Amino acid sequence: MKSFTYYTPTKVFFGREEYKRIGEIVEGYGFKKVMLHYGGGSIKKSGLFDIVASSLKEHGIEVVEFGGAQPNPTLEHATEGMKLCVKEGVDLVLAVGGGSAIDSAKTIAVGAKNDCDTWRFAMKEAEPKAALPVATILTLAATGSEMSASAVITNSELGLKRGYNSDFHRPLFSILCPELTFTLPPYQTACGIVDIMMHTLERYLTRPGDVMITDRMAEGVLTTVVDAGRRAMKNPEDYDARADLMWAGSLSHNDLTGSGRDFMMISHQFEHEMSGMFPYVAHGAGLAVVFPAWAKYVYKKNARRFARLAELLWSITEGSDEEKAYKGILAFENFFRELGMPVRMKELNIPASAFAPMAAKCTANGTKKLNAIIDYTDKEIIEIFELADRD
Amino acid sequence: MKSFTYYTPTKVFFGREEYKRIGEIVEGYGFKKVMLHYGGGSIKKSGLFDIVASSLKEHGIEVVEFGGAQPNPTLEHATEGMKLCVKEGVDLVLAVGGGSAIDSAKTIAVGAKNDCDTWRFAMKEAEPKAALPVATILTLAATGSEMSASAVITNSELGLKRGYNSDFHRPLFSILCPELTFTLPPYQTACGIVDIMMHTLERYLTRPGDVMITDRMAEGVLTTVVDAGRRAMKNPEDYDARADLMWAGSLSHNDLTGSGRDFMMISHQFEHEMSGMFPYVAHGAGLAVVFPAWAKYVYKKNARRFARLAELLWSITEGSDEEKAYKGILAFENFFRELGMPVRMKELNIPASAFAPMAAKCTANGTKKLNAIIDYTDKEIIEIFELADRD
Repeated sequence: MKSFTYYTPTKVFFGREEYKRIGEIVEGYGFKKVMLHYGGGSIKKSGLFDIVASSLKEHGIEVVEFGGAQPNPTLEHATEGMKLCVKEGVDLVLAVGGGSAIDSAKTIAVGAKNDCDTWRFAMKEAEPKAALPVATILTLAATGSEMSASAVITNSELGLKRGYNSDFHRPLFSILCPELTFTLPPYQTACGIVDIMMHTLERYLTRPGDVMITDRMAEGVLTTVVDAGRRAMKNPEDYDARADLMWAGSLSHNDLTGSGRDFMMISHQFEHEMSGMFPYVAHGAGLAVVFPAWAKYVYKKNARRFARLAELLWSITEGSDEEKAYKGILAFENFFRELGMPVRMKELNIPASAFAPMAAKCTANGTKKLNAIIDYTDKEIIEIFELADRD
Repeated sequence: MKSFTYYTPTKVFFGREEYKRIGEIVEGYGFKKVMLHYGGGSIKKSGLFDIVASSLKEHGIEVVEFGGAQPNPTLEHATEGMKLCVKEGVDLVLAVGGGSAIDSAKTIAVGAKNDCDTWRFAMKEAEPKAALPVATILTLAATGSEMSASAVITNSELGLKRGYNSDFHRPLFSILCPELTFTLPPYQTACGIVDIMMHTLERYLTRPGDVMITDRMAEGVLTTVVDAGRRAMKNPEDYDARADLMWAGSLSHNDLTGSGRDFMMISHQFEHEMSGMFPYVAHGAGLAVVFPAWAKYVYKKNARRFARLAELLWSITEGSDEEKAYKGILAFENFFRELGMPVRMKELNIPASAFAPMAAKCTANGTKKLNAIIDYTDKEIIEIFELADRD
């Protein structure tokens, strides 16, 4: 087992209608002025915005409204939020929404407390020195941002989507109410399922070495997500299924599933170039396309580990490890199809002419060597994109 | 899934020789004067004390030494520590040791900041309003106290051992170095293995209802502990086995294995009366005796859940759920025997005449109804103690 630091300070309030306590909770921490940050306005239609805002006001807390976070949230928009925080003297940034609103809130919270170009943090050219605290009310089980140190932001001018980790990104608290996900479109539920699986798979499918306790945690998250994912797709108002998915989403990305292991979120790296260049691509859908291709490209280098997953998740017991591993990858593809996800580039309308520019952007990204089971240069990445284009 | 609050703020530094960084870490938090609290002095013999104290001093931190925490740490001794903290103006209580030193440190840290009889907290008659921060360097994988909200303390005057939970008990940080457990006597390693299993089993073996994500986490901890426990008993210097055990110990009791479930640590409640009245009884050894008896007493009320464990941990696949469940309980007993643990009251020299007084102390404990699968009065508890005395 490798040495590691584990730090998940976020206090989680989990359960039906916990969001109604937001005023009491925020008052308990002693905050006075909260930025209420959200996305496209579905929380206004659903009535959630009014309940949250009223609860805050009832507890004497001023609310500064700032909506409009995009599905791939942009630095440009977050910068407006930073300025508003400074102008209004906000002391807590509260995101109400999914990963986009939360990541946007994290970027705002850091930017409001650092006097430098915030994009430099995303490019790993500088590190934040301070931040406003962030809190969340989660409406989508997917990114795990509600407990994670990561935030992903898009610079639309440069056509670049970049993620970076900082303990300043760890929310102070997160309120998780599974019933808020009952009304999600099936496509969004499915994208979330893929994203949660990927946070775990990318930590699990590495080489070499087993870390028994961490591997068992990862396998527990994966078996739960496959089962609860199917239940939630079949019956969107199955509370326990939604709850399993939501808590699995938090655990998948709060570091539990990777402790003591070497890993790199490689499918995420590839996908960020896809949705960075084609912003209409939903993150989960991009992952569903690129992960099976990546897996086909590398599985022979760690066939046992891929085979174990095939046995565990898809009950594939016949054949050699390599055969089981390959059948397992096809089973992932079939599961994504069953969820209504795309599994080929053409289904995302990403043309082959984009593969080389996307690969170039990926390898140009910062200081870190791209490694997960094998090393990657433009050549390998293009070949993976091509595999993702092939029937 | 039930509503729950999850809060594990402890920052964990996990890995070989991480304790050498103690001075740097404490300085990073800005502390000036640290109480170095420990047990019987084995850390002096091993040289750990000197390394830790030197590292602190090198970083300009004053050290106030306070040793002597007993295996079942006493309130009387902790009270001396509280007075010393106040007198010296200590700003951090650092426990170096196992659960006893850590629980004692927690009691000291709370007592030093509250002007009331500390025993009232343990009796749940009052709640602490503040505490000094606590940190730990762990030398034994067992109680999970390094990440948990709980502390157990013995009032030797009253012959009572009581635990209580408070967020003030959550350590600020914990340093976990698996190699520090290489030299433990096998009996202590075995006691730790039983304790870790029990923290998970008592959350898992409840009724009714499954919580898939939490159940999978609990099962992952249990399968790891059985496997790594065997490896560590066979080869005490197997780093990965010790590491699996240590991290499993933290996860078993940091709330991960019980989120969304109703449970009560019932074997712990019974065992506290055993080692409260017979302080030479090691906690893990007491648990190894009382858990199988408790399980035999209640398993028919939730045979499926006991049977699942039997399948998973002991590969028992033949028979009805009730049959598998019962065989599984015998397999737990055999595993404890294999570890060198006692499994009957007589092996602990606890006479049958003590059963009624121990049961009476247990039911007299505070305001909470004793419930785990069934309700308990003195009658049921005595019958369980009798089962633990029968071959």
